[in-house]
Amino acid sequence: MHYVIGVDGGGTKTVAVAYDVEGNVLGEGRSGFSNVMVDFKEATKHILEAIEQAQGNLPKVDCKYIYLGIAGSEGIENKDELIQILIDAFQTKVSVVNDSIIAHAATLKGEDGILAISGTGAIAIGISSEKRVFTGGWGHLLGDEGSGYWIVMEAFRQMIIEADESLPLGQLSMELLKEMGYTDPQDIKLYAYSRPKAEIAKLCKVVTRIAIAGDPVATRILDHAGQKLGKMTWNCCKKLGYKDEITIGLSGSIFKNIPPVLESYKKYLSEKIEVPIKWIQEDCPATKGAYYLASKEV
Amino acid sequence: MHYVIGVDGGGTKTVAVAYDVEGNVLGEGRSGFSNVMVDFKEATKHILEAIEQAQGNLPKVDCKYIYLGIAGSEGIENKDELIQILIDAFQTKVSVVNDSIIAHAATLKGEDGILAISGTGAIAIGISSEKRVFTGGWGHLLGDEGSGYWIVMEAFRQMIIEADESLPLGQLSMELLKEMGYTDPQDIKLYAYSRPKAEIAKLCKVVTRIAIAGDPVATRILDHAGQKLGKMTWNCCKKLGYKDEITIGLSGSIFKNIPPVLESYKKYLSEKIEVPIKWIQEDCPATKGAYYLASKEV
Repeated sequence: MHYVIGVDGGGTKTVAVAYDVEGNVLGEGRSGFSNVMVDFKEATKHILEAIEQAQGNLPKVDCKYIYLGIAGSEGIENKDELIQILIDAFQTKVSVVNDSIIAHAATLKGEDGILAISGTGAIAIGISSEKRVFTGGWGHLLGDEGSGYWIVMEAFRQMIIEADESLPLGQLSMELLKEMGYTDPQDIKLYAYSRPKAEIAKLCKVVTRIAIAGDPVATRILDHAGQKLGKMTWNCCKKLGYKDEITIGLSGSIFKNIPPVLESYKKYLSEKIEVPIKWIQEDCPATKGAYYLASKEV
Repeated sequence: MHYVIGVDGGGTKTVAVAYDVEGNVLGEGRSGFSNVMVDFKEATKHILEAIEQAQGNLPKVDCKYIYLGIAGSEGIENKDELIQILIDAFQTKVSVVNDSIIAHAATLKGEDGILAISGTGAIAIGISSEKRVFTGGWGHLLGDEGSGYWIVMEAFRQMIIEADESLPLGQLSMELLKEMGYTDPQDIKLYAYSRPKAEIAKLCKVVTRIAIAGDPVATRILDHAGQKLGKMTWNCCKKLGYKDEITIGLSGSIFKNIPPVLESYKKYLSEKIEVPIKWIQEDCPATKGAYYLASKEV
């Protein structure tokens, strides 16, 4: 029975899944980070381990493709070396692409369209036949507007205005301080400079709660986030080009967990895009995206 | 002959200077970092070394005050321990304050007023009798609007808009890429995430050159920087309060080296503040500020 292996390689873990031709899971493997730019040897070891686990007792000869998506793969100097190692080890066809490409294929089932992602960061990936375009994805110092981290930093900036202008602290500021266990706005410096971005981004839940309770400041921040993500997606649409219809897939915790952002986002785009939009918002493991991509080529 | 020792303690070096009662330099000492929060023991060693060098052969008994300004001194848990070590070693009065306090005293010669600093970061310190207020100083993630780093990041964000919206690159973007040795706007990610903030801030000179040559985008960024610094200072004025006149001292490379920022800054404040403003913009070593402060108390 022929099968393909999809690999989702990240900065902390590598997940490999073997799929039969119909996309059913045959085996799964997990290992450490696969960030080859950080440590090529160790990352390669993890990738091999995860694939071997996923392969289990499946006949090597039936493996028709290994499709590997890894973070920041465009920058890898020794991508060819990595591909050769995998070919030597598994005697099959191998592709190595950026992790955003397999994420796109996972949500859009390998079809053309745009995938907008907003989690800790924010990026849009557009694919049409062989054309691939990106907007956003500039990271937290330069961009990522509309991401979870950005939303919290916007809320912090509001608190800073209140502190610097000696205004009374608003409800959003007070609830954020309470959540962090602080009383003085000055303490957010400690928080913002010592915590990981993903942890800071989690304070989004406070902004969301206050917005849903009707606070105008929190509501404005979430509206703004939706518009920023809408703008990023619209820029991607323009780069990609579209005709009678466009498919937009949504991924990441922000679209899923913050209804006011999703609403503002869809409103922005429906005013910009004049053709019907097919929305896809389903969770699908990135490895399955690798399956869709491999299936096209097997 | 009585004397006082002013110490300017920073993250990379410690400078101590002995001054006679008229503010003449009697001796100078230099050592490594004095960031006691990073390494109390090592930092204390550096502070002692610098003071000993400054003291040289001057009689210990004539030393009437040691005034030490160190970065982030509010956060020091063992400030009392540090003071006791200095008292034991030099048998004199000792004060330990934040470095911004001695910077304020240096520029304003120990008088009341506001000191606005814009270098890699941005902060305003207001002192009136015993009242001390601060605005800005939130660091590069939360604020520092109008600082050198902020100016360059604003220029990068302009480049990102051009890249994401498929617009032709403007003159500012092209000159910045040339200065960095890049051709593709995507490469600024590499630059922004791998270089120290102070190095990124140095690209200000490109923004300034292009603005002075008449580029509207660069001009808008520098105008905006001046307004942001003006707003920070105005918030500080409001916190401090003022009556018939107010003294504003300026420090840091931005006010000194970027005339369009200074112009926009002064314009903003002269429209806000209805009393005469006494501007002070002179370079004065921070240790001299410690001398002014010590002189008040000796």
